[in-house]
Parts: sequence; structure tokens; C-alpha cells
Amino acid sequence: MIEYPAQGDAPRSHLPFSPCTRFGDFIFVSGQASVDSEGAIISDTFEGEVRRSIDNLRRVLESAGSGLRYVLQTRNYVRDPADVAAFNRIYPEYFQPPYPARTTITHCLPEVLKYEIECVAVMPPERR
Amino acid sequence: MIEYPAQGDAPRSHLPFSPCTRFGDFIFVSGQASVDSEGAIISDTFEGEVRRSIDNLRRVLESAGSGLRYVLQTRNYVRDPADVAAFNRIYPEYFQPPYPARTTITHCLPEVLKYEIECVAVMPPERR
Amino acid sequence: MIEYPAQGDAPRSHLPFSPCTRFGDFIFVSGQASVDSEGAIISDTFEGEVRRSIDNLRRVLESAGSGLRYVLQTRNYVRDPADVAAFNRIYPEYFQPPYPARTTITHCLPEVLKYEIECVAVMPPERR
Repeated sequence: MIEYPAQGDAPRSHLPFSPCTRFGDFIFVSGQASVDSEGAIISDTFEGEVRRSIDNLRRVLESAGSGLRYVLQTRNYVRDPADVAAFNRIYPEYFQPPYPARTTITHCLPEVLKYEIECVAVMPPERR
Repeated sequence: MIEYPAQGDAPRSHLPFSPCTRFGDFIFVSGQASVDSEGAIISDTFEGEVRRSIDNLRRVLESAGSGLRYVLQTRNYVRDPADVAAFNRIYPEYFQPPYPARTTITHCLPEVLKYEIECVAVMPPERR
Repeated sequence: MIEYPAQGDAPRSHLPFSPCTRFGDFIFVSGQASVDSEGAIISDTFEGEVRRSIDNLRRVLESAGSGLRYVLQTRNYVRDPADVAAFNRIYPEYFQPPYPARTTITHCLPEVLKYEIECVAVMPPERR
């Protein structure tokens, strides 16, 4: 059945969603933003928000027994299109070749966020 | 192979999409909005549109033999960021803990819609 | 494990993403836009951009051994809501009934793009 992996040190939130769900080998991760361990938004530079968001994504994946190298696809939300170039410079520090599939869209975040990322991943072979 | 479950009382549309597709245990549901049984948009308050959209999502899932409790992940589109707080109050009337994974983004709908939701779900154990 | 199918004549990009990833029977395709074989954007009419984007999606799928008829779900990004009607006229030239599930949202692209499409697909029965 659907599993709701323990959060470990992934950000907790009072909002009505699980950090991720697992079904079989697949993991679906909620949109991760620049928030602290209680889910409170930390406003930062664009680079700071990207790094904190992807770190949070990594924490959620690792708390589920997976990790960034097991990501199939990321969806990225960059509020200001002028930040897309910086996004493309920072992103490869977290994801290595061969890269996951990726989609990046813009504008579609509230004023309080500069960036958000979600992903679909799989479990590592040894954890299946 | 890919299945296209019968619609039951789910909204029908003349537009070129199926309400959902099924492959194995997985169900992929099209974006559901505040529309009537023929797919015509019903403009309403934000709350009214959210309730009608999630009811439509539920109908599509149930017509495929699944249901809201078998949802892995929802993606939510809230046109006006000022409505996100109301969204978080209404949403838990439809989804219970442990919640699906979730992403909520804003602005990215045409003027005629205040809200839209899509999801990935699975079949219940007894229907696999 | 995760596979990164050879690109064939699909567009190559210097950006940090794979055109698609495969896990088991599932294929996750990156957002495809109106770009040439090197990934450079080709600005065109809305119709021209839709056709080039879906052609690129088809090339990525075919390079992975799949194709448009094996698509479970598409997500479509139309920058100008006024173009949605045209989108609904062009789209059925590429996808035939019974259609994939579909979500279409608006506004969420940078000025340099009028349209983008991503999808989840499966491998044909004979290639599993």
C-alpha cells in the first residue's frame, strides 16, 4: 500500500501534506521551498533559497531511504525569469550527470517565495 | 496496456483529453476545475470552485475504481495567492492524514478559473 | 535501475537535464519547447512553437523506444491564455483518442517561450 516514510530531519509542516509518499519503488515528494525545520519560510537571496530548497528535498528523500541520485524528474518553479540563468549554474552542484529529467517554469509562486522544487524518485536497488 | 477507465458520473468534456489514464496500479488524473457534468465552467467563490474541483477529482477517481484515499500526490493551482490560506482550510475536509504529497503554485490559471487540481493515485489493494 | 535513453535525433541541450529518464516501464520526459537540435530557442508563432515542441517530445519518446501513443499524461504550459483555444485545435493532430490525461496551465513561462509540454509515458508492450 501507500507508505508515508518517517520524516527524519526533513522539514515538518502544520499544513495538510506529507513530505513524501511511497508506492512500490516510487517516491513522490511534495514541493520543497526555503523553509526551516518547522516549515517556516526563510526569505533569502535567490541562491540561498535554491540551496535551502534542494537541501530540504534531499532530506525528505534520505528520510525515505532514497537520495538525490535516485531522482527521475524534477519540477522547478522560479518566480523571476531573470533568475533562471543562476538556477542553471547552482543546480548541477546538487544533481550530477546523467541528470534527471527536468521542467522549469516561472512566475507561478507567491511573493514570499523565489523558488520551489518537487520530484519523483525511486528507491535504491538495495532498499527495494 | 494503458487503460482509459469509464467516466461514470465524472465530468465529460469535448476537449482532447481523458479524465484519467491507468497503467498497472497507477492512475493519472487530468486537471480538474469547477465544471459541470458536460465540462462547462461554473464560476463561483474560491471556496465553491475548490469544492467542485475536488468533487470532480473524486468522481474521476471513483469511476476508475480508486478514490481520494488512494492519492499519492496532488498538484494544486491557486490563481490568487491571497486564497492560499482558505485553500489550506478547505483541503483537509477532502484529504485525511496521513496526507498525500502536495505542491501548490499560484497565478498560473486563466481569468475564468480560480483553482484547479490534478493527481497521481493508485488502485485499492482489492482492485489490483 | 534508472536508464537515460540515447537521444537519437532528439534535441540536445547544454543545460543540466536529460531529455528523459526511464525506470521499468515508465518514461519521464523533460519539458520540451520550440528549440532546434542543439537546444537553441526558435521563436515562432504560437502554432509553430506548439508543433515544434510536440515534435521534440515525439523525438525524445521515440529515441527511448516509446512514442506519442504511449503517453499517460501531458502537462502543457501556454503563456498567453488567449492561445488556449488554438492549442486545443492543434493538439489533436498529435494525440488521438482515447487521449492521454492532460493539464493545461497558463502565464508560467518566460517571455522567450509561448508554449512548453512535458509528459509521463510507458514503453510499448513489445519493448518491455
